[in-house]
Amino acid sequence: MSQKYTEEVFLKVVDELSDYDSFKDVYHQHVPGVSFPSNERLKEIVNLTRSILFPGYFGNSEVEMITIKYHIGCQLEKLSNLLYVQVLAGLCFDADNESIDMCKLKAKSQQIVNDFVCELPKLRELLITDVEAAYIGDPAAKSRAEIFLCYPAVRTISSYRIAHQLLVLGVPYIPRMISEMAHSETGIDIHPGAKIGSYFTIDHGTGVVVGETAILGNHVKLYQGVTLGAKSFQLDENGNPIKDLPRHPIIKDNVVVYANATILGRITIGEGAVIGGNVWVTHDVLDGGKVVQQKTAENKPI
Amino acid sequence: MSQKYTEEVFLKVVDELSDYDSFKDVYHQHVPGVSFPSNERLKEIVNLTRSILFPGYFGNSEVEMITIKYHIGCQLEKLSNLLYVQVLAGLCFDADNESIDMCKLKAKSQQIVNDFVCELPKLRELLITDVEAAYIGDPAAKSRAEIFLCYPAVRTISSYRIAHQLLVLGVPYIPRMISEMAHSETGIDIHPGAKIGSYFTIDHGTGVVVGETAILGNHVKLYQGVTLGAKSFQLDENGNPIKDLPRHPIIKDNVVVYANATILGRITIGEGAVIGGNVWVTHDVLDGGKVVQQKTAENKPI
Amino acid sequence: MSQKYTEEVFLKVVDELSDYDSFKDVYHQHVPGVSFPSNERLKEIVNLTRSILFPGYFGNSEVEMITIKYHIGCQLEKLSNLLYVQVLAGLCFDADNESIDMCKLKAKSQQIVNDFVCELPKLRELLITDVEAAYIGDPAAKSRAEIFLCYPAVRTISSYRIAHQLLVLGVPYIPRMISEMAHSETGIDIHPGAKIGSYFTIDHGTGVVVGETAILGNHVKLYQGVTLGAKSFQLDENGNPIKDLPRHPIIKDNVVVYANATILGRITIGEGAVIGGNVWVTHDVLDGGKVVQQKTAENKPI
Amino acid sequence: MSQKYTEEVFLKVVDELSDYDSFKDVYHQHVPGVSFPSNERLKEIVNLTRSILFPGYFGNSEVEMITIKYHIGCQLEKLSNLLYVQVLAGLCFDADNESIDMCKLKAKSQQIVNDFVCELPKLRELLITDVEAAYIGDPAAKSRAEIFLCYPAVRTISSYRIAHQLLVLGVPYIPRMISEMAHSETGIDIHPGAKIGSYFTIDHGTGVVVGETAILGNHVKLYQGVTLGAKSFQLDENGNPIKDLPRHPIIKDNVVVYANATILGRITIGEGAVIGGNVWVTHDVLDGGKVVQQKTAENKPI
Amino acid sequence: MSQKYTEEVFLKVVDELSDYDSFKDVYHQHVPGVSFPSNERLKEIVNLTRSILFPGYFGNSEVEMITIKYHIGCQLEKLSNLLYVQVLAGLCFDADNESIDMCKLKAKSQQIVNDFVCELPKLRELLITDVEAAYIGDPAAKSRAEIFLCYPAVRTISSYRIAHQLLVLGVPYIPRMISEMAHSETGIDIHPGAKIGSYFTIDHGTGVVVGETAILGNHVKLYQGVTLGAKSFQLDENGNPIKDLPRHPIIKDNVVVYANATILGRITIGEGAVIGGNVWVTHDVLDGGKVVQQKTAENKPI
Amino acid sequence: MSQKYTEEVFLKVVDELSDYDSFKDVYHQHVPGVSFPSNERLKEIVNLTRSILFPGYFGNSEVEMITIKYHIGCQLEKLSNLLYVQVLAGLCFDADNESIDMCKLKAKSQQIVNDFVCELPKLRELLITDVEAAYIGDPAAKSRAEIFLCYPAVRTISSYRIAHQLLVLGVPYIPRMISEMAHSETGIDIHPGAKIGSYFTIDHGTGVVVGETAILGNHVKLYQGVTLGAKSFQLDENGNPIKDLPRHPIIKDNVVVYANATILGRITIGEGAVIGGNVWVTHDVLDGGKVVQQKTAENKPI
Repeated sequence: MSQKYTEEVFLKVVDELSDYDSFKDVYHQHVPGVSFPSNERLKEIVNLTRSILFPGYFGNSEVEMITIKYHIGCQLEKLSNLLYVQVLAGLCFDADNESIDMCKLKAKSQQIVNDFVCELPKLRELLITDVEAAYIGDPAAKSRAEIFLCYPAVRTISSYRIAHQLLVLGVPYIPRMISEMAHSETGIDIHPGAKIGSYFTIDHGTGVVVGETAILGNHVKLYQGVTLGAKSFQLDENGNPIKDLPRHPIIKDNVVVYANATILGRITIGEGAVIGGNVWVTHDVLDGGKVVQQKTAENKPI
Repeated sequence: MSQKYTEEVFLKVVDELSDYDSFKDVYHQHVPGVSFPSNERLKEIVNLTRSILFPGYFGNSEVEMITIKYHIGCQLEKLSNLLYVQVLAGLCFDADNESIDMCKLKAKSQQIVNDFVCELPKLRELLITDVEAAYIGDPAAKSRAEIFLCYPAVRTISSYRIAHQLLVLGVPYIPRMISEMAHSETGIDIHPGAKIGSYFTIDHGTGVVVGETAILGNHVKLYQGVTLGAKSFQLDENGNPIKDLPRHPIIKDNVVVYANATILGRITIGEGAVIGGNVWVTHDVLDGGKVVQQKTAENKPI
Repeated sequence: MSQKYTEEVFLKVVDELSDYDSFKDVYHQHVPGVSFPSNERLKEIVNLTRSILFPGYFGNSEVEMITIKYHIGCQLEKLSNLLYVQVLAGLCFDADNESIDMCKLKAKSQQIVNDFVCELPKLRELLITDVEAAYIGDPAAKSRAEIFLCYPAVRTISSYRIAHQLLVLGVPYIPRMISEMAHSETGIDIHPGAKIGSYFTIDHGTGVVVGETAILGNHVKLYQGVTLGAKSFQLDENGNPIKDLPRHPIIKDNVVVYANATILGRITIGEGAVIGGNVWVTHDVLDGGKVVQQKTAENKPI
Repeated sequence: MSQKYTEEVFLKVVDELSDYDSFKDVYHQHVPGVSFPSNERLKEIVNLTRSILFPGYFGNSEVEMITIKYHIGCQLEKLSNLLYVQVLAGLCFDADNESIDMCKLKAKSQQIVNDFVCELPKLRELLITDVEAAYIGDPAAKSRAEIFLCYPAVRTISSYRIAHQLLVLGVPYIPRMISEMAHSETGIDIHPGAKIGSYFTIDHGTGVVVGETAILGNHVKLYQGVTLGAKSFQLDENGNPIKDLPRHPIIKDNVVVYANATILGRITIGEGAVIGGNVWVTHDVLDGGKVVQQKTAENKPI
Repeated sequence: MSQKYTEEVFLKVVDELSDYDSFKDVYHQHVPGVSFPSNERLKEIVNLTRSILFPGYFGNSEVEMITIKYHIGCQLEKLSNLLYVQVLAGLCFDADNESIDMCKLKAKSQQIVNDFVCELPKLRELLITDVEAAYIGDPAAKSRAEIFLCYPAVRTISSYRIAHQLLVLGVPYIPRMISEMAHSETGIDIHPGAKIGSYFTIDHGTGVVVGETAILGNHVKLYQGVTLGAKSFQLDENGNPIKDLPRHPIIKDNVVVYANATILGRITIGEGAVIGGNVWVTHDVLDGGKVVQQKTAENKPI
Repeated sequence: MSQKYTEEVFLKVVDELSDYDSFKDVYHQHVPGVSFPSNERLKEIVNLTRSILFPGYFGNSEVEMITIKYHIGCQLEKLSNLLYVQVLAGLCFDADNESIDMCKLKAKSQQIVNDFVCELPKLRELLITDVEAAYIGDPAAKSRAEIFLCYPAVRTISSYRIAHQLLVLGVPYIPRMISEMAHSETGIDIHPGAKIGSYFTIDHGTGVVVGETAILGNHVKLYQGVTLGAKSFQLDENGNPIKDLPRHPIIKDNVVVYANATILGRITIGEGAVIGGNVWVTHDVLDGGKVVQQKTAENKPI
């Protein structure tokens, strides 16, 4: 900034960019003294939870049976402390600054953390079914250990199940942040509001989208690029999308959906149905039904 | 390396790999004393720009009105300094080493940085429209703040708009590096050369591709897996793709494109058109037109 | 944890989560004193290999001809040492703890590292053809250097070729971990078992899947979202997928596959064939054949 | 830990070391939710204060006049926030856990931080006199800048003056922690309770000790190894040292004390006095007095 | 390195510096595959030991009684693992490479680690006496907690006691490395071979030296700059210092040594003796004796 | 900063502290675009030089003979590059901003780096004599390797010799910064201007000071707390110390100086002389002379 001209311009731009009016529409007034929800901490929380649930994996590889209780104890305490701060951050972020009652929010945060901790044994049970499904369902998987080391499914589905549990317990923002972190890492975007049964697996997974109100049964398998989305052309009288309605598919038990299939709207895919790749499905499919793309035109110039 | 055999082999491989002839086709002779364009620095630049444009987000959560000008001032100075080095690196990287005129490139870099800084207030205005579009367009979004915390769209589109601005100002390489970083993070690949209007949004987004010469109007919305690509079968007399021609679609105002649709070639999708999921579109679509996949074959064995 | 209630619950959950029975199905007993395969180290190994193969890129930008041999020598030694530890970790991870013979595994690891090092010059030759294909095949690419700086293809394909070489040399787990790391970064999932010829390129790439037994000829080009997968409906008498069979496509020389095409099963796509976007292909395609989606239904209400 | 024997021993030692009785004499029960005073943060605070007081040094080298106010503003805000947390930590650490009143302690912390901030301009004035004294007093110093870059005196004395100010404002523990950090770095141990005038300097400095109740005038210069200590042979009726009495020397203006001199007790060293090296002084020295070691015995066998 | 001249010189210097003859006198051939003793790891080990011995301090401030056993258990396991590697490194470093028996050294390392772990409860007892001595002996100390937060004595003496214990258990090199690390941090240099009783304290401490064969009783207090050294003028027939002889002082119980006193040779300082500052003592001092410097010459020109 | 009062005060203090007049006496206007001399980089440079001079130590422990030349080559190149930047920073720092000639300073920096590199083989020879002296002279040293691992002497003396060489080559500031870093680490303060012969060693060393114009012969040994300082009572007509005069002692070959001795002024300590501990020497000592403290007064009340 050696020239006169630049300096003046620089100071003028600082003034413009500091003008409250220019950013007030997207400005969030934080509660002083309360941290912002932190992606970095949430990443730590998710990894810690995974490492508690699956001893011997996720950075905890040298665990031994003789000391495992010490490890679980320390990790669980650390998880509680980290999670408490994030849950409180989420509740504050969501609160009206004027009328905020910190004592109440702190008590609520502590209660949520306690409840989450109590759910961990069940979360482990459920996630073990998902690992099993991934192992059984992929001819390329040589062992369950390989699932942990090399498959995005475990990471994504564990993130989803953690996020879903927090959503059920009433935590705002945090669940979505967790699911978006998994989305960025694996390309799989499962909304934490979705309800998903046991033995769930996703192969490859890049591009998969599971919407907020989707309901999936047990033993469902999705391939890469599958969308379980909203057919959101229905608008309210003002032309805006109507919020908070059930608008994503219901997938029954034992359904397989192949690569890049797009299933939209509050439709039901019946038990044991198979949805072929690259199809666009907007109507119900019966139990045991099969849907495939129209035969393609071969050997023709485009 | 304890055995004689290994040592000899090792030294031989070092010789082979150090042989200039074996890598000269992919070797770039850098200008001594000038840094290489750095992904790490560009990441810092993009985050800094976001945090200047949206006070209170992107690592700057504790900003207060009383001191905001100090923060904006420091950040803008840091941004100028960091960007100057990268722009210069890009210009040098692109230059012919023999005839390079460092003084000229330095002056040009400074000019570009100044111009970029002056564009920031407009960039903020434009990006606020994108945030608005994401908020209005998604029934699952509870607040504008959630858009910042949990949606890949803001991160990708802000990267695109920064990269596009730098491309317009004549910076080589850097814009593509920025867009590729966003691509890696979100799975959304928008070429910085594309021209995109206001109120642009992308939902979920994984797999989206927007090509170099694409032109998008205002209020365009894309879903995951959408390609606005080139139908690049046209070759020159030597059988090579012809470069630098307009070859990607023109998307008019208020168009929605659903998941996994593939729109190819210099075609025009008319105002208000709706493109359904999983379709392959290579011809113009009229204003208000709707395109959907042929009805799928249900309940048939594959 | 200030309340009596919480403390008791906390201790109880620690006991439950430390109970061996609750996680024994997914527990891996590691060999004491041998490290676990490490994603962090593998990332370092892949970057080091890239930087040896392509002097001047990948964190090694200031290399000069006068000292290049020193650099290659040091990097190759470091690569050998790092890789040795990971290969040994992979072999131990795969071994039966009871009967493990560490001396034998160490010797085997050293042999594999030596063989890998000897393959590096050929690996460079092959990867240079891939860079060439990316440059020639993309009208938006301004120079070969841009390919290195801004294209995910080089990163993914170099990871694949490294992983494939290690798989050929008999290393378990490590190759899949390397390919999954590339998958997470680029959204491109190439199984290291796939066999791929020279001049291979992928454009944009998010969502691409290439299966374990796929065979690709020379000069093959894939676009984003392409699946070369298994049509895995065939089950054994117990209803499980049959493992280890050739079950992915054979793609002959000079084939182009457009965005989001899904090609499934042990079929053959003939030389010079073109597969259009968004199609679902489960039968052979002749040499020079072209496959496109059925014409879409335009201008109809959905 | 592969042998039975070791495991049992290990668990037994864990039990012993976890036994509250074995460490209760040295256990400090912290206030839940309040951080411990942190050496790391205090280091940051000291550096930040130095960098505010001396623009252009201490990690802030690229400051420019046009933006200096932005920098000072951001740094001062950061300093306030960091210091507040540490002052509160110190007050809590000192408090009786049973009757602690957090609201009061928070208000007190904020008041102390405000008062400290207001003192900074005076602190700068005072420290500039110290820099001047170091420059004038050392024939080896080429410039004032060299004093900042290469002399431990500025670092130690600035730490002392910061610590002293905090002590005066009523902060417990923190001042001593700051002075001990400087002690570790420079070997100079100045108790924050000491009162020291302007134009103070220390040359080389390793081994210097200035006690809690020492009083130094203006223009005092100390060399390495000088002790201004307590002659603490006086005991109370129980044989314990009597606490809180003035027990360290008073050093008047313009005194020089040479290397390794030990000055003990509440004595007065008169104005302009010179204390030679390696002497042990336990009585008053008159204004202008000179004290040297008895002549050594030369050329004699020991 | 742009000029011809420089390049040639550079290559020549590389050759010279790589010539084995030029450094063979100070070259240590390490055992392949065994790590070198690591200062960084030893620092970690010392901190971990301190934090096990004194729960609530040294980076472990948030410990709670309910979970303390988990923490001690994890830390003790980590300590065992880290220490094992360093002890083995020390033993290998000391061994003759030709005849090294790794199995034996590994077993010995494990045994030493086990023995060290078993000594920890006693080490805590002993160190608590040192804290007590520091607290009782310093009028400036407000609480025992202040001793931990602000006094170099605890850090140095705990390092010494850890190092001494390892020396007693037969570990080479490591103890000296630990004591040198404490020396660098506090300026206090206690050889791990010295034998020191309970209730030991050092005030300020910079410049203190306690030699390898020194023996100190209980309740000994040293001030800064005190040397308990060898009067090493005695040489063997070749003019070299005779090694491994007792050559440092014996200090009986309840002795105080004031600042900068130098006590040399295998002399005995009797019980309850007081040694004044800046004296040079080379003969025995009787029980209860007092030694002070000759009266200084005051008010004389030098 | 929630109260009106605080805000106003805060802004006022920012204004005061940003006022150029308040810090102009200690402000250094840096040359834009040139880095400040960096302690961090200098630390790296010193470590790199040590690791080049002593292969197998200082972070380079796994060096093998087969690849040593690659390592030395890479390290020497890195050293050259790092040093060049620091030398240039030092020259710029020292220059008058108005008339600075960057081209000349760059050429001079390069020349200095080249000259320094050429001196490295001699530096190694010299330092090996120092290691030898430390080993021979200390009965507690078990091997030369222990000298490297555990003795501050090698670190300090190598820093001094590097700094001295740079001073001789005309580099400003940098040498003093290097010696001050060693001072902070070891408590030994050797001015880089001092001239010191071969086989130099320092035992323990805390508190040692060697002044700018001191001259030491070969085989000199110093103990902790020794000062070779200026007897700087001589003033010029204005009462200021006269700069740039020889004012520190000349120490001839084979001299030993014991702990805490203070030797001041341009005196000569003759060949083979022995200076006892805690003495204050301000006159010449003959060849073979011995100087000890006056006999202390024992068994007297103080």
